Amino acid sequence: MSRHALVVGSGLAGSLTAVYLARRGYLVRVLERRGDPRAPGVREEGRSINLGLSQRGIVALREIGLLEGLAPLTVPMRGRVVHLPDGLRFQPYGLAEDQILHSVLRHDLNVALVDEAERRGVEFLWGHRVTSVDRAKPAVTALGPGGEEVHTADLVIGADGAFSAVRGHLGRGRRVDLHQEFLEWGYKELLIPVGDDGRPRTELRALHVWPGDDGLIVAHPNADGSLTATVFLPFDGEHGFAGLTGPGRVRDFFARRFPDTLTLIPDVVEQFLDHEPASLVTVRTSPWHSTTDEGRGIVLIGDAAHAVYPFFGQGMNAAFEDCSTLDRCLAAHPHDLPRALAAFEAARKPHTDVLAELSARNFVELRDKLRSPLFLVRKKVDLALHRLFPRKWVPLYTLIAHTTVPYGDALARARRQDRLLDTALAAAATLAGATLAGLVVRSRGTRSPGGRKVT
Amino acid sequence: MSRHALVVGSGLAGSLTAVYLARRGYLVRVLERRGDPRAPGVREEGRSINLGLSQRGIVALREIGLLEGLAPLTVPMRGRVVHLPDGLRFQPYGLAEDQILHSVLRHDLNVALVDEAERRGVEFLWGHRVTSVDRAKPAVTALGPGGEEVHTADLVIGADGAFSAVRGHLGRGRRVDLHQEFLEWGYKELLIPVGDDGRPRTELRALHVWPGDDGLIVAHPNADGSLTATVFLPFDGEHGFAGLTGPGRVRDFFARRFPDTLTLIPDVVEQFLDHEPASLVTVRTSPWHSTTDEGRGIVLIGDAAHAVYPFFGQGMNAAFEDCSTLDRCLAAHPHDLPRALAAFEAARKPHTDVLAELSARNFVELRDKLRSPLFLVRKKVDLALHRLFPRKWVPLYTLIAHTTVPYGDALARARRQDRLLDTALAAAATLAGATLAGLVVRSRGTRSPGGRKVT
Repeated sequence: MSRHALVVGSGLAGSLTAVYLARRGYLVRVLERRGDPRAPGVREEGRSINLGLSQRGIVALREIGLLEGLAPLTVPMRGRVVHLPDGLRFQPYGLAEDQILHSVLRHDLNVALVDEAERRGVEFLWGHRVTSVDRAKPAVTALGPGGEEVHTADLVIGADGAFSAVRGHLGRGRRVDLHQEFLEWGYKELLIPVGDDGRPRTELRALHVWPGDDGLIVAHPNADGSLTATVFLPFDGEHGFAGLTGPGRVRDFFARRFPDTLTLIPDVVEQFLDHEPASLVTVRTSPWHSTTDEGRGIVLIGDAAHAVYPFFGQGMNAAFEDCSTLDRCLAAHPHDLPRALAAFEAARKPHTDVLAELSARNFVELRDKLRSPLFLVRKKVDLALHRLFPRKWVPLYTLIAHTTVPYGDALARARRQDRLLDTALAAAATLAGATLAGLVVRSRGTRSPGGRKVT
Repeated sequence: MSRHALVVGSGLAGSLTAVYLARRGYLVRVLERRGDPRAPGVREEGRSINLGLSQRGIVALREIGLLEGLAPLTVPMRGRVVHLPDGLRFQPYGLAEDQILHSVLRHDLNVALVDEAERRGVEFLWGHRVTSVDRAKPAVTALGPGGEEVHTADLVIGADGAFSAVRGHLGRGRRVDLHQEFLEWGYKELLIPVGDDGRPRTELRALHVWPGDDGLIVAHPNADGSLTATVFLPFDGEHGFAGLTGPGRVRDFFARRFPDTLTLIPDVVEQFLDHEPASLVTVRTSPWHSTTDEGRGIVLIGDAAHAVYPFFGQGMNAAFEDCSTLDRCLAAHPHDLPRALAAFEAARKPHTDVLAELSARNFVELRDKLRSPLFLVRKKVDLALHRLFPRKWVPLYTLIAHTTVPYGDALARARRQDRLLDTALAAAATLAGATLAGLVVRSRGTRSPGGRKVT
């Protein structure tokens, strides 16, 4: 007898996990609050935010056989183009040909996953909002177009995002830790359209960054030659979203802080004033799962379990890694769902906690450090050492974006490398100092009393 | 025209703030989910947990003129009696006569505050559960015995505890940070009854502590000569609440870990098995308030704003300090409620964050350090220095419990003292080392070749 899985949320994590579960023989139903993303007009209305698909996401998409088919929807990014007052700098992501990221529209990827899930027999119920969850069964009550319905399942998956309803119900009357923290900065998206000549207005095969401690822009390329720029600003203050109200102020701000955007985005002022700023949240919670004595259970994945700031570009990739890890845990304990869910949480939670920390740290890096010459030198030394010892010395960014080394292990390894680098730099400085001192001593020692060198 | 205040929650913070607001001329209504605490039988049923009233709470109760009347309900505690395997140790709380705490039953104090509030014209609506909050008015919808009612007010105060409904509604669709963390330990309360001779079974005028890294008991005295012991244990594991199931195991555990409790609590096994363990939570959130353009507002106080672990005995005291601080802020800005609420949050939030940290740290102190000889020596040196320089050197515990120095300032001062103590101890050690070395050199230098001293 087939087991039933109920997935709440048809977003990236929900639709991918539905594919995995269907592959594993579950009868899968997905409840989604919104309507079918394939309906006319939805692509234009929805969250257009671009995503950078990196190694962890690629591995999962390859596993379900969807990677090849996605190629036409993606644009490879070979590194970062940093926009500085005196011009552009290019920072490659890595050495190898395959150390690249793939820019893709959230919507396009989501539709591809929903299509694939349906092809595998997954049933999607659109316009169904969760109103309660019964942990003891488990069962999910949802309000759909035809009224309230109760859905029971052997396995319920909460893939309903950072403000997960399943998480809320899972925590009722239990000792559940929850950390929800908003960044004091928000964002608006602006389109860098294709040029009048039909060609991209700037380098397409890269991520673009305009660093700055009072405002930050990141732009991803689109397959049609346009780019989507995300402007990150403080919510409050004269130069935050609250203060940038009239067209004059907005134009002045962009002209002063990001002058080249005025040519890249001809209608930057109109676009900026036309959008509401969105907020950024980090969510950590524990536990992620609940099980019954009969061997059924509920588990959270993706943003519902661990929403992170987008500054390491790992939100989707971590969610996809959840899906592949959950699938492996279900395979390892085919007749023991409680053990599979416990193994999943144990395997993922420490690492997504580290990702939350890294994502917050990368905000500081993108904002402040990309303008620091010292930081850029260190970054170059880091990459040079990677070039010399490609297997023994791997920069943190490379470990996170271009490998599937667990986040926590990647951080531990990077910390060891950082200490080595510090020691090496200190030794080099000491050596340089000693050499300099030696030179001074020698030159003094060989001076004639008259102050001129003898030799 | 009088302004209207609506307080949600008639607990300690809610009833005290109602008194303050009535004194300040507000028309005050209090909504409470539970029934009237003065109804017959409630005292026996309710949370019996004892509280240690310290300086911050005392100042507030004195301010509203209630302190004198409470004396018969309280028992002074002059220090801690630590129960160790080899006997008892007494640690005084401080030097001065007034550096004592007052043990009081939550219920008795609450009833006194509700009586006082009613005396000042406050209206209590019992059995009213909040179902929604409208920030824009502000208005609170509550389900009472007669159905749903909407209550509007100029000032709404959320004093509804760690799992505050007002806080939940205040956060909807706003950037609200929330940190909720449960301790992996829980607690049960046990009564140490009066002895058969009608006298207390142990020293009454003290807090009793049984330290231990696998279990911890704290006992407060009651005015009737009994004491209420709170047993803190891990939830999980063989020696946690999950494992201590049968009478045999419970008796063995108490006999091995807390042997003297068997004589202090003759029915310890029955009492232990009769109660469900309760959990301990830390909550931090931000912001605490919301205001309207018309100058009305909502604010959180007490546990709703900052629930802390009970290990520094400051939960109630911090809540009472909220009430007196809020009253001062309302006095400072009599015609500008938004400014008063902003001033209140700015004045309190940094310090209650520090209290959360101190309360978690004191768990470690009570659990592990009270058994460490080194720690006890350091504690003695700390108090000896206080005796030498009563104004210049004040131990952290004294600053928190016996003064109204803001928590953050107290911690900063204690850190400076700790550094001084470290430096002094290191200097003493170096001096001792040097003296020792000098002695060795001198004694060597005066030895005869035969190894006997010449002088």
